[in-house]
Order: sequence, then structure tokens, then C-alpha cells
Amino acid sequence: MDVISVIRTKRDRGALAPEQIDWVIDAYTRGEVADEQMSALAMAILLNGMSRAEIARWTGAMIASGERMDFSTLRRHTADKHSTGGVGDKITLPLAPLVAACGAAVPQLSGRGLGHTGGTLDKLESIPGWRASLSNSEMLGVLADTGAVVCAAGDGLAPADKKLYALRDVTGTVESIPLIASSIMSKKIAEGTGSLVLDVKTGSGAFMKSIEDARELASTMVELGNDHGVRTRALLTDMSTPLGLTVGNALEVRESVEVLAGGGPADVVELTLALATEMLAAAGLPDADPAKALADGSAMDHWRRMIAAQGGDPGAELPTAREKQPVMVPASGILTRLDAYAVGLAAWRLGAGRARKEDPVQAGAGIELHAKPGDPVTAGRPLMTLYSDTPQTFAYALEALAGSYDIAPQGTEFAVSPIVLERVPG
Amino acid sequence: MDVISVIRTKRDRGALAPEQIDWVIDAYTRGEVADEQMSALAMAILLNGMSRAEIARWTGAMIASGERMDFSTLRRHTADKHSTGGVGDKITLPLAPLVAACGAAVPQLSGRGLGHTGGTLDKLESIPGWRASLSNSEMLGVLADTGAVVCAAGDGLAPADKKLYALRDVTGTVESIPLIASSIMSKKIAEGTGSLVLDVKTGSGAFMKSIEDARELASTMVELGNDHGVRTRALLTDMSTPLGLTVGNALEVRESVEVLAGGGPADVVELTLALATEMLAAAGLPDADPAKALADGSAMDHWRRMIAAQGGDPGAELPTAREKQPVMVPASGILTRLDAYAVGLAAWRLGAGRARKEDPVQAGAGIELHAKPGDPVTAGRPLMTLYSDTPQTFAYALEALAGSYDIAPQGTEFAVSPIVLERVPG
Repeated sequence: MDVISVIRTKRDRGALAPEQIDWVIDAYTRGEVADEQMSALAMAILLNGMSRAEIARWTGAMIASGERMDFSTLRRHTADKHSTGGVGDKITLPLAPLVAACGAAVPQLSGRGLGHTGGTLDKLESIPGWRASLSNSEMLGVLADTGAVVCAAGDGLAPADKKLYALRDVTGTVESIPLIASSIMSKKIAEGTGSLVLDVKTGSGAFMKSIEDARELASTMVELGNDHGVRTRALLTDMSTPLGLTVGNALEVRESVEVLAGGGPADVVELTLALATEMLAAAGLPDADPAKALADGSAMDHWRRMIAAQGGDPGAELPTAREKQPVMVPASGILTRLDAYAVGLAAWRLGAGRARKEDPVQAGAGIELHAKPGDPVTAGRPLMTLYSDTPQTFAYALEALAGSYDIAPQGTEFAVSPIVLERVPG
Repeated sequence: MDVISVIRTKRDRGALAPEQIDWVIDAYTRGEVADEQMSALAMAILLNGMSRAEIARWTGAMIASGERMDFSTLRRHTADKHSTGGVGDKITLPLAPLVAACGAAVPQLSGRGLGHTGGTLDKLESIPGWRASLSNSEMLGVLADTGAVVCAAGDGLAPADKKLYALRDVTGTVESIPLIASSIMSKKIAEGTGSLVLDVKTGSGAFMKSIEDARELASTMVELGNDHGVRTRALLTDMSTPLGLTVGNALEVRESVEVLAGGGPADVVELTLALATEMLAAAGLPDADPAKALADGSAMDHWRRMIAAQGGDPGAELPTAREKQPVMVPASGILTRLDAYAVGLAAWRLGAGRARKEDPVQAGAGIELHAKPGDPVTAGRPLMTLYSDTPQTFAYALEALAGSYDIAPQGTEFAVSPIVLERVPG
């Protein structure tokens, strides 16, 4: 087997043979295939595509590159959720304890934010004392004790994906449905969950800008999961405007706690319940009642135990930014558009996100929205508030926000778009 | 300027801006753009193409990455030839001294063979004492004294191309007309020749298998050369069967000396004269008579001086292989096909070529043909003879030759295809 013939096969629009895929993933993981060879192959895959059969084999080879976890010793059904990433997407925070409160076990291996979308681990790390890194046995312990664990994926899971993901990030080969689907699913299948619900986002703040691409990605991943014995389904959800009223690490934790306390923004509550319902059905608990678990405080109890089990103090004061600056409404009327990508980019520039993997994030930085599309706004009142420890970033954030919203005259008809756009059954 | 935006531009089928091209070539030469980033860009260029304007800028940026030679101190017009590579293509050996004998100066910077095509320097190195590496001032001295110099290109010429060529070789990104054209022409323009004739080969033994691709490559290179002030033209020539009757280093030197002595195979003589005529016309010497220079011994005189000026002994015995093995004609008739690629591959396996840049070649290894397409052949007589110092390679060479020739019954009509297929004027 030689790597140039593998690259040529895909370059010349052929299908990679199963043994070519197995070999190239293994040889890349071992360092026999060089980065410059894999990046040429990744570009050929991005431009010429892969069939479902090729994607399935590619995913299988990435799973086989590392260990596969096993939760069969738990007495509970396991259920996980993965979001393709959006702006203000804090849903994992209320969702994991909520689903645990309803009887499933939620092993949620998460990532850090890169670019304009935030990362779940960055958000939780704004809670004093909370730590993301657990050994496999610590993770199993937290899961058995509290029903939910949110932590960083260990180095042993799909190391081929870890290496390839870092390579794609610097070679312009991220935006490929076959490579995105196999990357997500190799990690989720190796993680060992019994069921999985995918939240595939579409719109300006998502990686998939069009609903067609989102649909293709969702159905590819649903098929991959079910083929590997993970009961998988997906929701296509709207990411044209931020989720909820906060974007930023500690800001989003605060909003998540409001949801667990029975309040919070309607869109966050709606999406949390929709995903919980899917997860519980996929996990074999179709009769569970997540709305009740939110209302009766049992979801909040699970949240407190989950945070405490990883060293966090659920009652502690959350960090706040040193400086803030309001952005005023220029003219009264109805807010008809508030662009997710622009808000995400502005929050990132304020310090909520990172440009490089090794950069730190500011816990208190971000944006609080005072209106969402469909809401009336009044001239001279704040439309949003920017938060940062580094006030010199306010100007850059404002630049990102230029042209990011539309206000129509009072009385204009405006229908708020639904959060859940489509459902892809398993 | 950042490299991912450059990669994305080409990946998404856009045209690279002039400043993107200048920056990426310079940054790659300096090591700021990594190999894995350049290989992803090369694959995107291979699959999505480049416009003539992009190719011209890319070539200019590669020229600007190093020094540019200057032959303006010579009293003679300079003329060079470049072949895209074929099997048995020893034409440079008789051609350079022949054109020098007709009054032009021939600065021929050549390469070594890689894969199934031989390299001019490897062939000349089979002459005892001859050396390929000259400093720039030594090169100018040999050129001024003898009218022709064939030597290795110095490290100072188009270093960006040197780096990119080595990268393409290991990443499946060789077969791109924009990248081939810019690679060849950046070196030839930096070399400083005043005129250039391109021998663009097509057929099984060539990199361009189809005449359409060869035509596109030729016209791209002719335009690039003329745009940079080098009077450039091209011939498209046949490489479906080997040139001449020998393939291999010392074997081809011997055949070249036969041509210089006024003999040699008709196809080699025909192509040598055709290219000489083009070179002399491009150099501004349309009245020179290369056939006379072959016949009157002046080309041979120039050969002897050229070889001696680089330490070679033009009268020395050439090395021969330790072992030989004939391949017999299976049935009498007319040879109607003898595949160039198969013969090139077989010669390579016998030791005439190298698999990796650092491998040595055998001076005596190769193949002698006893018939060419159109010739009558007799059962039981040798069709060709294999030569090697390593007789264990005979079996591998025979494997490459399986199915490589056709013999039709005696009396079958058969028209030998012409050597020169088309001419691309400058």
C-alpha cells in the first residue's frame, strides 16, 4: 500500500477501497503518512466527496485508532447529545442534568470553543473550582453517582481524529460533510454511549449555512451512528440568531441556571425540552416527563450534584467582566433580525473565545441581549450590553456588530421562526 | 495575508489575487507556510485549475524567489530546449553540440531521472570523468569556450520551485498543467536563455497521455515564455514508442555519438534536426544548416569539446552491464506496437532509473531494441536485449514487458506515425 496511490484514487474521483482507508488512517496515526500527504488527501476528499460506504469505513478506522469506552456496567441507559456548534448554545448545561433527572445516564464528552462558537468546557470552567479533565474511572464514577458527567475527551479516544482535526484546522479542509460527520461520529461512537441525539444547526451562526447541507450532514451522521449500534437521531435547528439572551462563558452559565430554576428565555427552554424528549425516547424512556423535572427542581438538584462532583461550587458567585458598554437602539420599532455570526464574532473579540488552542478565555466576557427578533425596541434604550476585562476590544466588537440587526416600523407583521426546523429519525 | 484564506479561495473555485500568489510563494519559500498547507493548496489547484493570468503570476513569483542568470556578456544568441520527458529521449546529447556548431550558445540546465523516464545528467555521467555540478562562473566559462553546456541547475535558481516540486512528488499533485507549466518555465526563465524550444511529448511513455493535454501544456508554456521575454515555441512529439533503439544511460550515450557521427536511428536524427531548426530560428539564426553540421563533423567536434570541458573523456570506453538477456520474437510478422511506458518501466527495473532521489543508477543497465514499429520481425530472433548488473531484476523487467508489443502477419498494411505531431508557434 502506498499513500500516493491512495491520494490519486480520490483525486481522480474514484472510491477509496476499504483496505486503502484502513491503511491510510492507521499509517497517519503512526506517523508513516506525513501531514502534507494527509492534507492533500483531505482536500481531495473535500472537493470530490466520499460515498456513504467510504464515510462509514473512514469513521470505523478512526474509532479503531484508539480505545472504545464501555458503560455496560451502569444500570442505566446512556444518552448523549452533540451540537454542531452555535452562538449562545449553552443547551448542554441544563440538558445533561435534566435528562439524568429523568432516569438516563448522560456521558457528555465535550470540547472547547474555537472561532466564533463557544465551548461547553469553557463555559463550565467559569464556575469556581470546576475541572474538565477526568480519568476514565473518575468519569465513570461521576456518571454512576450523579447520572451526568460533562468532561474533556481523553487522549485515548479516536487519536486519528484528534490529529486529523488539528491538521484540517490549518489547511482549509474543515468544511467537508464527510470529514465533519466522521470526525464527530468517531468520537461519539468511541465514547460508548447507547443513544445519541444530534443538534445540527443551520443559519449564519452555524458551520452549515444552508438547510440542504445541514440535512445531508444530519442524515449521514444518523446512518453512521445506527450502523455502529448507537441509536441515533437528529434535529435540524435554527442558528440565524443567538440562542437565549446571553453569549459568553459565565453569562451563559447564569442563564442555564435560570432555566434549571424554571425560568430562562423561551427559546432555550423550548430547545432543551425538545432535545431531552428525543434523548429519553432514544434511550428507551419514552414516558419520562422532562417538563416536570424542570418544574419540580429535580433537574436543578442533579445540576448541583454534577457540578460538585467535579470540584465546582454550584452556589459560588460567578465571575463578572471588569468593564461593560451598552449598544443603544437607534430607532424605535420591532427587531426583525439579529445576526448570530456577528454576535458570536463580537463576543469572541471581547475575549469570550480564543483564536488559537493555547489561548485563555475570559470568564466574564460576552454579550447580553436585551431584545430578540420579534421584540419591540425603543430608541435610546440598550439593545445589548458588551462585557470585557479588556475595554480596548469594545471598538472591535462594535465593528463586528455593524449591520448585524434590522429594526422595522412598529406594527410591521413579523413571524418568529421556530427553533426546531426538521427532525431526522433514526 | 493568511494562508487559510488563500487555500479557501482556490478550494472554492475562485481566482487567486496577484498579492495572494506573491505572498504564498514567498512565505512558503521562507518556511512560514507549512508543507501541509502548500500541499492542500496544490491539490486545490490541481482539481480546480488556474487561469492563464494566475499561472503567469505564480511563475513570476517562483522566478522572484531566487536569482536570475544573465548571459548578456556572451557574444552569441542563447537557445535552450526542454523536453517534458520520455523513454529513450537522449535528444539533448546530440542536439546541444549541434546547435552550438551552428552558431548559437546552448545553456542547458538539466535534471536527473525519476520514475520511468531517464535524466540527461544520469546519461552523461556514464562518461568516465564527466561532472554535472558547475558553479555559475564555471558554467559561463564552458558556454563561452565550447558554445554548449549541460549541467545541473544551481540551488539559487527558483528555490520555491525546487521545494514545491519535491512536495508535489510525495503528495499526488504532480499531474497539474498549471503546476507543471509554471515549474518548467520558472526554471527556464530564471536560467536566462534568450530563446527556448519545448518538446512536449504525448503518448503512453509521456506524462501527458492525450494530445489535448499536451497541446494545453505547450500553449501555456509558450505564452509564459514569450510574456517573460524569452522567444518560446513548442513541438508536440510522439512518445507512444521509445525514441531510437536504446533506453538506458551508457546505451543512449553510444547511440547519441552514432548520430553525431552521421548515423543513428532515423527517428532520433529526424527529431534532433527538427528541434535544432526550431532552436536556431528562435535564436535568430534561421539560415543555419544543422544537417550540414551533422554531416561535416562540426557537431561531433563540439560534442568532444563540451564533454572534455566538464572533465569527461569523449574517447573513453563506456561502461557495459555485467549481464544480458535477450527477449525473443514469438511469431514472425510486422511489429505494429512497442509500448514506450512498458519499455521505460522495464529499463527502470533493470537499474537504469531510480525510485528515490538519493538512489544510484547503473550506467550500463537498460534495453536495446532490435526492431521498431513498422519493422519486420522473425520468430526466434531477439526482439530486444535486456542489460543489468543485477540479473535478479530480469524477471521484474519481463513482467513489465508482458503485453507491451503487437506483431501483425507479414504483409499487413502499417503506417509508422510521424515523430513531430504539431507545432505551436511563439
